[in-house]
Amino acid sequence: MLTDCLATTDALAGIFSDESVLQAMLDFEAALARAAARAGVVPDRAAQTISALARAAEFDAAAIARDARHSATPSIPLVKALTARVASVDPESARYVHWGATSQDVSDTALVLLLQRAGPHLAADHARLDDALRAMSDRHAASVMLGRTLLQPATPTTFGLKAAGWYASAARGWRRLNGAWDSALVLQLGGAAGTRAAFGAHAATIVDAVARDLGLRTAPPWHTDRDRLGALIGSCGVYAATLGKIARDIALLMQAEVAEAFEPGGGSSTMPHKRNPAGCIVAIAAATRMPGLVAAFLTGMVQEHERAAGGSQAEWPTVSAVVQTTGAAVSSMAAVVEGLTVDTDAMRMNLEKTGGVVLAERVVMLLAPQLGRDRAQQLVMEAVRRSRESGHGFGRSLQDLPEVSRALAPDVLRDIDRPDLYLGAAEALRKELLSE
Amino acid sequence: MLTDCLATTDALAGIFSDESVLQAMLDFEAALARAAARAGVVPDRAAQTISALARAAEFDAAAIARDARHSATPSIPLVKALTARVASVDPESARYVHWGATSQDVSDTALVLLLQRAGPHLAADHARLDDALRAMSDRHAASVMLGRTLLQPATPTTFGLKAAGWYASAARGWRRLNGAWDSALVLQLGGAAGTRAAFGAHAATIVDAVARDLGLRTAPPWHTDRDRLGALIGSCGVYAATLGKIARDIALLMQAEVAEAFEPGGGSSTMPHKRNPAGCIVAIAAATRMPGLVAAFLTGMVQEHERAAGGSQAEWPTVSAVVQTTGAAVSSMAAVVEGLTVDTDAMRMNLEKTGGVVLAERVVMLLAPQLGRDRAQQLVMEAVRRSRESGHGFGRSLQDLPEVSRALAPDVLRDIDRPDLYLGAAEALRKELLSE
Amino acid sequence: MLTDCLATTDALAGIFSDESVLQAMLDFEAALARAAARAGVVPDRAAQTISALARAAEFDAAAIARDARHSATPSIPLVKALTARVASVDPESARYVHWGATSQDVSDTALVLLLQRAGPHLAADHARLDDALRAMSDRHAASVMLGRTLLQPATPTTFGLKAAGWYASAARGWRRLNGAWDSALVLQLGGAAGTRAAFGAHAATIVDAVARDLGLRTAPPWHTDRDRLGALIGSCGVYAATLGKIARDIALLMQAEVAEAFEPGGGSSTMPHKRNPAGCIVAIAAATRMPGLVAAFLTGMVQEHERAAGGSQAEWPTVSAVVQTTGAAVSSMAAVVEGLTVDTDAMRMNLEKTGGVVLAERVVMLLAPQLGRDRAQQLVMEAVRRSRESGHGFGRSLQDLPEVSRALAPDVLRDIDRPDLYLGAAEALRKELLSE
Amino acid sequence: MLTDCLATTDALAGIFSDESVLQAMLDFEAALARAAARAGVVPDRAAQTISALARAAEFDAAAIARDARHSATPSIPLVKALTARVASVDPESARYVHWGATSQDVSDTALVLLLQRAGPHLAADHARLDDALRAMSDRHAASVMLGRTLLQPATPTTFGLKAAGWYASAARGWRRLNGAWDSALVLQLGGAAGTRAAFGAHAATIVDAVARDLGLRTAPPWHTDRDRLGALIGSCGVYAATLGKIARDIALLMQAEVAEAFEPGGGSSTMPHKRNPAGCIVAIAAATRMPGLVAAFLTGMVQEHERAAGGSQAEWPTVSAVVQTTGAAVSSMAAVVEGLTVDTDAMRMNLEKTGGVVLAERVVMLLAPQLGRDRAQQLVMEAVRRSRESGHGFGRSLQDLPEVSRALAPDVLRDIDRPDLYLGAAEALRKELLSE
Repeated sequence: MLTDCLATTDALAGIFSDESVLQAMLDFEAALARAAARAGVVPDRAAQTISALARAAEFDAAAIARDARHSATPSIPLVKALTARVASVDPESARYVHWGATSQDVSDTALVLLLQRAGPHLAADHARLDDALRAMSDRHAASVMLGRTLLQPATPTTFGLKAAGWYASAARGWRRLNGAWDSALVLQLGGAAGTRAAFGAHAATIVDAVARDLGLRTAPPWHTDRDRLGALIGSCGVYAATLGKIARDIALLMQAEVAEAFEPGGGSSTMPHKRNPAGCIVAIAAATRMPGLVAAFLTGMVQEHERAAGGSQAEWPTVSAVVQTTGAAVSSMAAVVEGLTVDTDAMRMNLEKTGGVVLAERVVMLLAPQLGRDRAQQLVMEAVRRSRESGHGFGRSLQDLPEVSRALAPDVLRDIDRPDLYLGAAEALRKELLSE
Repeated sequence: MLTDCLATTDALAGIFSDESVLQAMLDFEAALARAAARAGVVPDRAAQTISALARAAEFDAAAIARDARHSATPSIPLVKALTARVASVDPESARYVHWGATSQDVSDTALVLLLQRAGPHLAADHARLDDALRAMSDRHAASVMLGRTLLQPATPTTFGLKAAGWYASAARGWRRLNGAWDSALVLQLGGAAGTRAAFGAHAATIVDAVARDLGLRTAPPWHTDRDRLGALIGSCGVYAATLGKIARDIALLMQAEVAEAFEPGGGSSTMPHKRNPAGCIVAIAAATRMPGLVAAFLTGMVQEHERAAGGSQAEWPTVSAVVQTTGAAVSSMAAVVEGLTVDTDAMRMNLEKTGGVVLAERVVMLLAPQLGRDRAQQLVMEAVRRSRESGHGFGRSLQDLPEVSRALAPDVLRDIDRPDLYLGAAEALRKELLSE
Repeated sequence: MLTDCLATTDALAGIFSDESVLQAMLDFEAALARAAARAGVVPDRAAQTISALARAAEFDAAAIARDARHSATPSIPLVKALTARVASVDPESARYVHWGATSQDVSDTALVLLLQRAGPHLAADHARLDDALRAMSDRHAASVMLGRTLLQPATPTTFGLKAAGWYASAARGWRRLNGAWDSALVLQLGGAAGTRAAFGAHAATIVDAVARDLGLRTAPPWHTDRDRLGALIGSCGVYAATLGKIARDIALLMQAEVAEAFEPGGGSSTMPHKRNPAGCIVAIAAATRMPGLVAAFLTGMVQEHERAAGGSQAEWPTVSAVVQTTGAAVSSMAAVVEGLTVDTDAMRMNLEKTGGVVLAERVVMLLAPQLGRDRAQQLVMEAVRRSRESGHGFGRSLQDLPEVSRALAPDVLRDIDRPDLYLGAAEALRKELLSE
Repeated sequence: MLTDCLATTDALAGIFSDESVLQAMLDFEAALARAAARAGVVPDRAAQTISALARAAEFDAAAIARDARHSATPSIPLVKALTARVASVDPESARYVHWGATSQDVSDTALVLLLQRAGPHLAADHARLDDALRAMSDRHAASVMLGRTLLQPATPTTFGLKAAGWYASAARGWRRLNGAWDSALVLQLGGAAGTRAAFGAHAATIVDAVARDLGLRTAPPWHTDRDRLGALIGSCGVYAATLGKIARDIALLMQAEVAEAFEPGGGSSTMPHKRNPAGCIVAIAAATRMPGLVAAFLTGMVQEHERAAGGSQAEWPTVSAVVQTTGAAVSSMAAVVEGLTVDTDAMRMNLEKTGGVVLAERVVMLLAPQLGRDRAQQLVMEAVRRSRESGHGFGRSLQDLPEVSRALAPDVLRDIDRPDLYLGAAEALRKELLSE
């Protein structure tokens, strides 16, 4: 859809396309027929006919969507259409379509199958992002830059540490998402009220066979217990927010006045000088939408009795948007980080332009033992003032203060405004983060 | 889309379809070319060529969607594609495509044009709902039923008053929505930074002409001032919540144990006895999703400087979902209320089955002047107990208490458990609500 | 509360304090007693006693809060405590406490009274913001600065236009909020099921008297019709988002690398050079929380029958947070804008540092008539390249190109890179915005 | 707070009270001073003085809250107040207050300490709920009741299976919540830009000592990496939604027309017959608010660079509301389930009142092998019709149809409408759920 074009990828748009959704529903019906045939409750011939005709391309998605509005589920018109198709070939077999299942068995299992198919695409993009962040962090272990707090200069840090923080947060987020994803790949098959009564004594056999056929795990019916899906959605929300944080940081570094990093591409045909943070924008837009989508899902989780009147019927658009939006964000950020140009000169210059004030804390620490903390602070503020007025550097201004030059050893004095000497545990922390 | 099939109507799905979205973008480009030609800044021939070729059917929506992901807007690939088409016919004219406009001018105006086209569909369905609610309220002015608070029996009310409350709340919601909708139908045309600089002295002329051509109002560029859209989205959220309240009430009345009202249709092929609240479910599902969608829009309103990096790019899917979901809810509820079967016998029986306890308040009021409130309350509780034990009615149990029968005039005593005599201002309030 | 300290103001924290909330509930009870006495259904003496004892300071808010958890409303323990207090003075009068009302009549009317008291505080802060934005816009009508789109340099604009955009959006937001606020100031008084049955023939008289006493409007009971509150909450959401946009813009302008504006205060004791955007942060934090709060309110609007089981009980914390958070944002931004330091030199310098590329569009427009648009674009890109390599300005680089200098008149050539000549309709738009 | 009284418990309100919040901040400062003293960078005497004076009762929470609004953090005024207190006793020691730390180190660690203290309270209530649900499920393993789908009768189920579904979903939710909670108990200690530079070579020693002192884990600074908190918040959202589902189910079962279950208490003084679902309402209200609160947290996770301008400052009210609201829900539902009265007679009667139609599926299955499915369905519909018209039971109506009585063995025919014979795998599923 054009309206949603920034919130998906080619692969994911395919997975949530009408044909793919229909096929997932039909895959369930075919697997059910085969399993019931193996259990002996449905004739083999019916199972074969149903399987053979369960091809999405033969069905009219638009008509099914339209009819779905009258029964509040796409399952009923889909089953009706499948039944009609089977009946046109073999009326006897048509009786066994959807045997023992309920509408939500089809729609839930189809949703799970779509998740199963989408997972590897997200995983591949996360792996790219993961690799690119680790490599970038290593490459810039010694690239000193301004730490920035509340969008103001703070003490120095390294780009390597910054990238390691991005990495670790994304890695944790992915682990949670991946675990939740895996836990959600559960067959839905409960029948009218979740007791599998229509399967009689064959319930366990049929359920196991359908699950094996579709590559899903089994569990008791979960028609109104949506917590596994909820956990998946919530973990997508956290992960996308982390990607949004990385994207916002990069977009801020790309500002012309900062100019410390640039994502590839993003050129504008009419303004050739512009390098827009197009990839970051896709991820920021994703992080903007996701909290509301997560809320929408959680709201719908309060589902009545054995099958809900409204809650579950609100899920499909939300789940499909959450998965595609998360996928768009990680795909986009993988490309951004893989192609990121980092300007370490600009980083150094932006540090220097602060006139040394970001090192004030360090100089106070150096002077305090001899001069006391209060006097140390006074001298540093005096040097900051002089540096601003004279345009000389902060180091030179400090050296010009006799009290300072007396207090410190010459080699310490010489390097007094070197930000790379005030990085604290940056490198140790970077390594710790990369080991997460 | 099948994934979104319960959250739209046929008409609205058409309006937000790829072809319709493309056409809205192309309508803007054509109107701009014509206006610029009239102002003399673009050759007439270019305007004619551009207008003639601005036909959505000739463009590849999927390709434009794909390319949009690289520039974070569908406008750039659309303009490129239109330029190429024009160039293939007349290279000179191609220079004037998109003259003086910026990407967001196209995408915002297209969005507004879609709103303009969607509005009448929602209005028509609201008018149906409005009529049906008023008529139903009049029809049931005297249909006494249980008032229910915290899902428990309270004092009696009328179905006419209940329907009038639904009506008034929906009517107020629609007025707000309609006003906000109207206010949002504003052309976007600001150029690169919102100053219309590229139009030079012709800015006002061109802007007026484009607006007139498209049937929109003019205003200063609002690239990052999204409050008009925000007000529209918010009012859709309030209106949809009201529809959700009506739908939940009806779904509760449809419970087999209550059985006071039934929506038309909703039959299930496998369980012929079932009448599912399918229409109500569409509206409840809408009310479930909307709060998160509203939140998503509001989140994106914090947009940077002259054009946002992420906020506005998150809007299209949200606005299109909000409009379609609201439209699905009102269309669905119009049909539900138009075809609602109301069982006034069931209403009376459910009242009677409470054993009169819901009239306890009334009887205390009748007895208190003579016996004092405390004694009155004791007697009423005694009658309730007796009524439950004996299975006799509450009135009979009261009459059996000598202290009660002495205290009240015979005609009052005779009608002591008539709920229709304890309706307070129900009818006056009903009329007041219908006059809103 | 410390946990909420950044999300309120002193005045609003007072209004939503326990004592103030209790007093609002007691004000309702007192007004009801007086009105019922005037109608003759409650003894004068009871009304006097109830009124006299309805003083919040005499009640134990903590105990009432605790007991509220058992009945799912603070009204029941409050009424019980008031009844006990009245009984301790005059047992007869105690019978008339809360006469004819229901729990939600108290809690809803109390909420409305708190809104009534909070309104003027928000209005006063908005008026300050409104004045400050208009004045700032006028002062900087001619302050040329970079337009910035997607956080990248675009064509020039003026700070006056930017401030006028902030003004107009905030003004529209306030008008909506103010209208919705006013519409929500409606007495709640419906009795057990919303029919006012317990008041008998005196319903209209009593309702009118209570409303007059409390300065509220009357309307039919709205126990489960929360659309007026919903509209108020939604308009707070839109308004706060607009304030968040202004705050984010200013925080971005305050970045050390941009340094075009500074809010007053925000100094840090440990880093004397730092000027934190503390005021903007309060507003950004508000805009961050509000969408979720709005969603929470809308979610709760789907309320069952005559009184809800959960929806309305979720409202108090949300409404109180929405009002206080909105109030914190506007109070904070009023102070920020009133004290904003604007550095027009920095604005000019940041423009110049772009090397003229933001004027490329302008120069192409000037050259196109003679050289054709394609050649014009080539020349401009050549000049941009030269300007970057040589460090000379963009204007000088253009003048050095013979083809350019031949094409343009000397005076045009001289001013070719003046951004103040490429402001389009900025001043006209500014005035239009200020007239909103 | 009265405004929030339904959204907390006594214990949790204490933990998030001003005094407790202040003490958590002071606990951090005291632990930091002691750790720095042990590392030799702060004099022992200073550490002792700071520790001794770090008592919340001595500080003015209201003043700190007020001042927090000027610096956008409560940490700055708290540190200032602590410094002043220490200075009043020993000016020299005052220099070492907050040594090497940054504001967010205090506020984040304090938040984590509050989570640490709140955790056991939620755990205790969940354990009660967990026990009560298991016991109730066992007790009602054979209590047959209507399955209900879309709020309509479906095939039978058991109350034991229903309770087991509640149990398993809550148990899974708690496991996720508990894991996320544990992972979030991480010390925050990074200094100005997260490099711990002010601690020099002692960083690791000091960080370890502070963490040990406070009973927290260590990790690299996470000032803008909020994913651990996000995961906790998200898991609270899912868990609360599950509690909301249980609460809604019970509130629906408590309807007078259904009357299958009743929570303890909830009596109303004015309507003695009423048993309100007060406990369920607290949980439903929680589930109503939580999605928006989760969204608010996720929105704030997009935090800039080394410390955010708005995102983290929005967190305290959200986290404190999420924890207290979740705690209110689980505490409330533990009491509801522990005291739940279940009316198995009502369950049976409601089943019978459906006139057997919910067994239609079963009878078709029994007849189909001999008569074919189509004829079987016709006969069942005929029996349903007859049963409704005659008032005889569904079984009798079936027996009256010769074709049916011929087709089935006498013992099958006799029990043909026994719902307990159509429970499918209910008991096996129940056991499987309880083993989760």
